[in-house]
Amino acid sequence: MLRPVLKDDSQTVISWFLRHHVIESGMEGVVVGMSGGLDSSVVAKLAADALGPDHVLGVLMPETTTPDECMEDAEVMAGNWGIEVRTVDILDGVEALGEMLDCEGDEDLGNVKSRVRMMTLYHIARTEGRMVLGTSNKSELLTGYFTKWGDGASDLCPIGDLYKTQVTELASRIGVPQKVIDRVPSGDLWEGQTDEAELGIDYATLDRILLGIELAMDDEDIITGAKVDREQVAHVRALVRGSVHKRRMGLVPKLGARTVGLDWREADLR
Amino acid sequence: MLRPVLKDDSQTVISWFLRHHVIESGMEGVVVGMSGGLDSSVVAKLAADALGPDHVLGVLMPETTTPDECMEDAEVMAGNWGIEVRTVDILDGVEALGEMLDCEGDEDLGNVKSRVRMMTLYHIARTEGRMVLGTSNKSELLTGYFTKWGDGASDLCPIGDLYKTQVTELASRIGVPQKVIDRVPSGDLWEGQTDEAELGIDYATLDRILLGIELAMDDEDIITGAKVDREQVAHVRALVRGSVHKRRMGLVPKLGARTVGLDWREADLR
Repeated sequence: MLRPVLKDDSQTVISWFLRHHVIESGMEGVVVGMSGGLDSSVVAKLAADALGPDHVLGVLMPETTTPDECMEDAEVMAGNWGIEVRTVDILDGVEALGEMLDCEGDEDLGNVKSRVRMMTLYHIARTEGRMVLGTSNKSELLTGYFTKWGDGASDLCPIGDLYKTQVTELASRIGVPQKVIDRVPSGDLWEGQTDEAELGIDYATLDRILLGIELAMDDEDIITGAKVDREQVAHVRALVRGSVHKRRMGLVPKLGARTVGLDWREADLR
Repeated sequence: MLRPVLKDDSQTVISWFLRHHVIESGMEGVVVGMSGGLDSSVVAKLAADALGPDHVLGVLMPETTTPDECMEDAEVMAGNWGIEVRTVDILDGVEALGEMLDCEGDEDLGNVKSRVRMMTLYHIARTEGRMVLGTSNKSELLTGYFTKWGDGASDLCPIGDLYKTQVTELASRIGVPQKVIDRVPSGDLWEGQTDEAELGIDYATLDRILLGIELAMDDEDIITGAKVDREQVAHVRALVRGSVHKRRMGLVPKLGARTVGLDWREADLR
């Protein structure tokens, strides 16, 4: 059956990528927001293995809808892996911004939480000479399941080319606790939020369809190959199409010889 | 002499770009933060001309280091151009975040201000079905003279392919008041901040050198053609090289057939 499989050399490629870019940038190390969930735990462990735990700072950023258990799990993992942990209570900042903006409803305030976390990580990164690691996976990037300029904003995104089901497989291999792997995926931005309910599809099915789209297959082949419904394929294609703007910098209209974001080639520069 | 010249059809191209993308996205209109400075005034006027002023919302976001005069000028321009104006006092949000993050020094707090403004514009955009217009110009984009995920974050960046000196020329043509054109360029993120002091070079010289880099000229040709010093060219090349990471989304290591940000082609999707 058509489904994403984790290649054996994935951890090696990611390790090389992290070492290359962190050393190339001349930075002290990296900072990663740890939620106790699967993705951020995998990213933290990969970074510790690649760069050495001394070069990784895990930041816990709890507020009211953050489960205590998740923070405890993050702290235990970090401890076991030798990663320094720091806690920044973001509640005051979130409340002040929520009030300032007259936020109404979960999604509105969820965006504020996500962006305040981005600000926290970038503040630490700047003052301590670190790079910010993103924790988005390929399933999230392609469906736009992240806050634009919030958790979607990072310097390096180590698991951005692995579907959620591949991240789960990688997690087992690198020693993320089973309890964390089994946890129901959630952004914890409001009570009762779950990824699969919000996405309107389970990750196993989603990932098979996304792989079909990645391989430029047409609907019929995806339906047969991935054993999914026509409606599910249409739903996922709509998610991908509707989130194009979340995967790119602000668009610039072409006026000059070389335009930023279009054909300005950084490598051309001497 | 080598220097950027404003092409006659620049306004036409930008108008077409704005109409195309705002209509294509099915949005109600756009939102732009107006500082009373040159760039945001030009963007607001271009948007009003392209989309009709009814589809443009100008947002004033003052805090302690915002000159009253700038806010008054922005309000007068918006009034003359038929653009609706809204004021969001961001001081409480900035102070809460600054305290939460233990911000020290101007640049730290400047980043907070810039990112709180981004959050404000995106909050309004989401709740009212608008797109966020960025106000960065090509001189800023290429030197990294903006806050990452702050004023550098937008949906559409209408003047992103015009150097500051070209924006100044365009401003005169489209009726931005001379007083605004003559104002010393500043981010107003702290007292006494000016662009040219921070950049370490004046815009006229900077833009000539950047054009040489854009045209892939070597140092000798830029020095002769743009009538600049060797040290100035080296300084600008360093600014461009050092800001590559601010012009792109978080980097993803390649593991799959098509990777977001590398070779995932949105246009391939059906």
